[in-house]
Amino acid sequence: MPRESGGVELIVVGRVESTLRDPGDAPRQPDEGAPPARVVVAPEFGAALVGLAAGDRITLVTWLDRADRTRLTTRPRGDAARDEVGVFATRSPDRPNPLGHHDVTITAIDEHGFTVDALEALDGTPVVDVKPCLGPTANR
Amino acid sequence: MPRESGGVELIVVGRVESTLRDPGDAPRQPDEGAPPARVVVAPEFGAALVGLAAGDRITLVTWLDRADRTRLTTRPRGDAARDEVGVFATRSPDRPNPLGHHDVTITAIDEHGFTVDALEALDGTPVVDVKPCLGPTANR
Repeated sequence: MPRESGGVELIVVGRVESTLRDPGDAPRQPDEGAPPARVVVAPEFGAALVGLAAGDRITLVTWLDRADRTRLTTRPRGDAARDEVGVFATRSPDRPNPLGHHDVTITAIDEHGFTVDALEALDGTPVVDVKPCLGPTANR
Repeated sequence: MPRESGGVELIVVGRVESTLRDPGDAPRQPDEGAPPARVVVAPEFGAALVGLAAGDRITLVTWLDRADRTRLTTRPRGDAARDEVGVFATRSPDRPNPLGHHDVTITAIDEHGFTVDALEALDGTPVVDVKPCLGPTANR
């Protein structure tokens, strides 16, 4: 199989601002008590936000920069009673490319960024993409 | 806002094998006629697949290497009658980090990779991550 020789470089387009500062405090899933957060978008990418509005459901894509990229297997939810499984079968942040996918609702937006209802990412986490969630009414 | 000086490097963990070879043939969404495809995973990442099984619903994350990374705005679905919007409000492959998110079902799997039911990515597209879809019954 052909492989990239040099890899592929991501651009950091924004940052998470959150009250979550300690990895031990981060909930594993957003329905487990994640706080609201703000995403600050770098000025050169502000134009890419045009058309998004409060109420929109998006997938926020982050780079989980405190993850262990060398791990290929893990115990789901750290539970010693469960078998070790491959990281691709889990949502563990520890994986070769620690991309975080967060389905969130935009609560307010301007050209500098937006706020979301609940986000389990830590303060300072790099943001690399924003995508509208696909649904029955999505036509874009 | 602090910025990464050098950016973040993605590792290519696999490749799409598909009958889709021409960008003009790629459907815009998987429900618009995408063919089945195979994902070949590089041998050093095979262990990360353990625990996935046929029938599992996953998000396949690809790197859309033929995308235009300089575009910040676009017309949804190329429709000249619609206003130009920011790429973060669309699923266009043209965006600063052209990550493709494909929600697919695994139809067969072994240690070298897996097949999926319908995938709109072109043959040779790099794969950078695999995540189980979250749902009411997911507990991992």
